[in-house]
Amino acid sequence: MTNSSLHKVRIVLVGTTHPGNIGAVARAMKNMGLSKLYLVNPKMFPHAEATARASKADEVLAQATITETLAAAVGECKLVIGSSTRLRDLSLELLDPRECATKVVAVSESNEVALVFGRESSGLTNDELLQCHYHVYIPTIKNFASLNLAAAVQIIVYELYMVNLKPIAAKQYDTLATAAEMQLFYEHLQQVLIDIDFLKLNNSQLMRRLKRLFNRSQLETTEINILRGILNAISNLSRLYGNDSG
Amino acid sequence: MTNSSLHKVRIVLVGTTHPGNIGAVARAMKNMGLSKLYLVNPKMFPHAEATARASKADEVLAQATITETLAAAVGECKLVIGSSTRLRDLSLELLDPRECATKVVAVSESNEVALVFGRESSGLTNDELLQCHYHVYIPTIKNFASLNLAAAVQIIVYELYMVNLKPIAAKQYDTLATAAEMQLFYEHLQQVLIDIDFLKLNNSQLMRRLKRLFNRSQLETTEINILRGILNAISNLSRLYGNDSG
Repeated sequence: MTNSSLHKVRIVLVGTTHPGNIGAVARAMKNMGLSKLYLVNPKMFPHAEATARASKADEVLAQATITETLAAAVGECKLVIGSSTRLRDLSLELLDPRECATKVVAVSESNEVALVFGRESSGLTNDELLQCHYHVYIPTIKNFASLNLAAAVQIIVYELYMVNLKPIAAKQYDTLATAAEMQLFYEHLQQVLIDIDFLKLNNSQLMRRLKRLFNRSQLETTEINILRGILNAISNLSRLYGNDSG
Repeated sequence: MTNSSLHKVRIVLVGTTHPGNIGAVARAMKNMGLSKLYLVNPKMFPHAEATARASKADEVLAQATITETLAAAVGECKLVIGSSTRLRDLSLELLDPRECATKVVAVSESNEVALVFGRESSGLTNDELLQCHYHVYIPTIKNFASLNLAAAVQIIVYELYMVNLKPIAAKQYDTLATAAEMQLFYEHLQQVLIDIDFLKLNNSQLMRRLKRLFNRSQLETTEINILRGILNAISNLSRLYGNDSG
């Protein structure tokens, strides 16, 4: 796993009103391996609320770049994607967050990339959106489409992180029981259930149901050992008190 | 597109400290078409900060259910998934948010489902996590893994919404046992294991391992009935032959 390509991805916040949102964005970025924050004309920054909401990501705030214009914040970027909840008639090509992430991760291997987010109240202006190559759109229900700014950034950077993850090492399967161990467990289980008069020898349907149940949970060898320990405890009880029909 | 199945999905917040996070969670839920919020022992609720951060989702707060215990908040649910950033040695089966969403959307067609989130500082306790069938884990960088509570909920409900946009063949999940039925089974199992001298009263680790095993297989109600039938047969044996310590 590497996050190296995400170091070339910057988050650009335009005209942010609430400093708490700037802090929450910094935290979301750091969680997902991003570090470059650009603030275009923030209303209040630096600010104690930004620092508080950043939690332990305050170095992202400390290293933030403040600019007067969006153009200055995205100048050297090869790919600029603007986020907006409103669908405009300017119709840039629309991307969902996953499509956005795929493009960003591909380009940011060797190029600077900007993801641009607008004001809490009114988003990006049409002029600002037209400085972007694509428009990323987070699906929501229709009558309550306005995401919190930091929540929107969180979704976008989460998708970046997911796309950027290299294939993860297969889960550990070497603790699982073998088919032979499972078979011995089932034989043991069947014998004990007969011994305690729960199961008749010819009731194969009940055993099938129990096998289905335990197969589904993919037993580990240590779990088989626990279950067979329980079966032995029942057998001892049964044998001690003369109920052993086996 | 339909969001109907998400109406059966509840978000359960356990022991939340900051009321602002509760409000932000309500907003994230409403954006993605969820409405059922359960609060287990919130530190401060209702609270002006919760209402402010909810933005226009304050009806989610107004309709929130407050409970004393996690068990009360998830009792009738057929699927319970707990969120945790810490990987525990109890290792419930791990899901990433997308896998989580796939399971939830399938089950919630016709059943109640709970997504459980822990305290801001310390998450869910091991006991709480063991009341869940699965453990959902949001991938992050290793040395800054702690997401803001509302940010974590936002990612999970975003994935739900994305999966729900695409029709999935619904499996039959209405045969699954409820959390309350599971709880009664575990109590029964523990009592019988003590009765047959397999388990000491204070050996909680063994019971944890057994819970993990059975949680993983998502027991059906009829399977619970079979297993409790076996437990009754063991109890009868134990009682008949004078080994009943219960």
